[in-house]
Amino acid sequence: MARTGRRPGDSGSRGRILAAAREAFASAGFDGATIRGIARAAAVDPALVHHYFGSKERLFVAATDLPMDPEVMLPALLAGPRDELGRRLATLFFSIWDDPHGRTVLLGILRSAVSDPRAAAMIRAIVVERIVGPLVAALGSPDAKLRTTLVGSQLIGIAMVRYIVGVEPLATAPSEAIVRAIAPTIQRYLTGPLDVA
Amino acid sequence: MARTGRRPGDSGSRGRILAAAREAFASAGFDGATIRGIARAAAVDPALVHHYFGSKERLFVAATDLPMDPEVMLPALLAGPRDELGRRLATLFFSIWDDPHGRTVLLGILRSAVSDPRAAAMIRAIVVERIVGPLVAALGSPDAKLRTTLVGSQLIGIAMVRYIVGVEPLATAPSEAIVRAIAPTIQRYLTGPLDVA
Repeated sequence: MARTGRRPGDSGSRGRILAAAREAFASAGFDGATIRGIARAAAVDPALVHHYFGSKERLFVAATDLPMDPEVMLPALLAGPRDELGRRLATLFFSIWDDPHGRTVLLGILRSAVSDPRAAAMIRAIVVERIVGPLVAALGSPDAKLRTTLVGSQLIGIAMVRYIVGVEPLATAPSEAIVRAIAPTIQRYLTGPLDVA
Repeated sequence: MARTGRRPGDSGSRGRILAAAREAFASAGFDGATIRGIARAAAVDPALVHHYFGSKERLFVAATDLPMDPEVMLPALLAGPRDELGRRLATLFFSIWDDPHGRTVLLGILRSAVSDPRAAAMIRAIVVERIVGPLVAALGSPDAKLRTTLVGSQLIGIAMVRYIVGVEPLATAPSEAIVRAIAPTIQRYLTGPLDVA
């Protein structure tokens, strides 16, 4: 890979690349975003993007670092009453979406998952394995993997309808109202009967 | 728009254009699909595509004609016990996804909705207004629009996790098992308490 004369330690350029990458993945998805376009938006040479991140896949992983730490989040979720877990997880979900940085990251994840199987694989690693999976495992429920994906399906579906397709009234309803509507669903998927054979 | 010497009535070309369009929307989404590429795949002149359909938007609407007739479907859904509506709707949902033509159309709809706001608007018209909306209206439940979008969110989320992102065990579980797991959710969104203010 060609090296330019630009100094890799150029202060702030790494952060600008990450910010530009988040914007690019959020608007164009993994497939549509290009190293060249991200470099241009960050006002750096494409070779510097390669120097820092090596590949578009690794840039995606770095850029989609969610504004949440599972090490902190998980104990907080598990701390309250078990029968209100669904409400707490749904509330946490919207708190990330309502954060501008979180929303940009999550839009990028969703758009990328639809357009590119490699991005979809990374999303499984990031979202399912880091967030919902550990929660279900901590609960010790049977069918842990099925429960994880069912919770994921309801949350991803809400994100699609509210933030991507934008169907009213879900698009503009207060998040508290949606939390009340979906909390029993999340709760049953986490701890309730699933009625699977 | 330029006219070619090709005869518009060319037998079979309209069907070939629609089939090529379904494939293109399913694999590339609304934004990625092009009239030129669809014409090439259908072995026709791009002008013939314009002649039949006028615009990519109108081609999309024609190509995404779902393998189901709401006029037939709705009475069938409403005919059985009300407390099994969730199960019947979920079963119908998978019967469309398990049909190869239906799956191609629905993948195109989902991929297009994520990449293009115009496609998202068309999906609202096609899926929400034609299918779930009339069902909720027929039930006479309060908060009909919110219920419609909540049902849509769970079904779209299942489609994302099962067919697009492909997370196990949802990706390969028998559809009957998923129906049992999500039927109570669909049922509550259709007729149950939502606990919204």
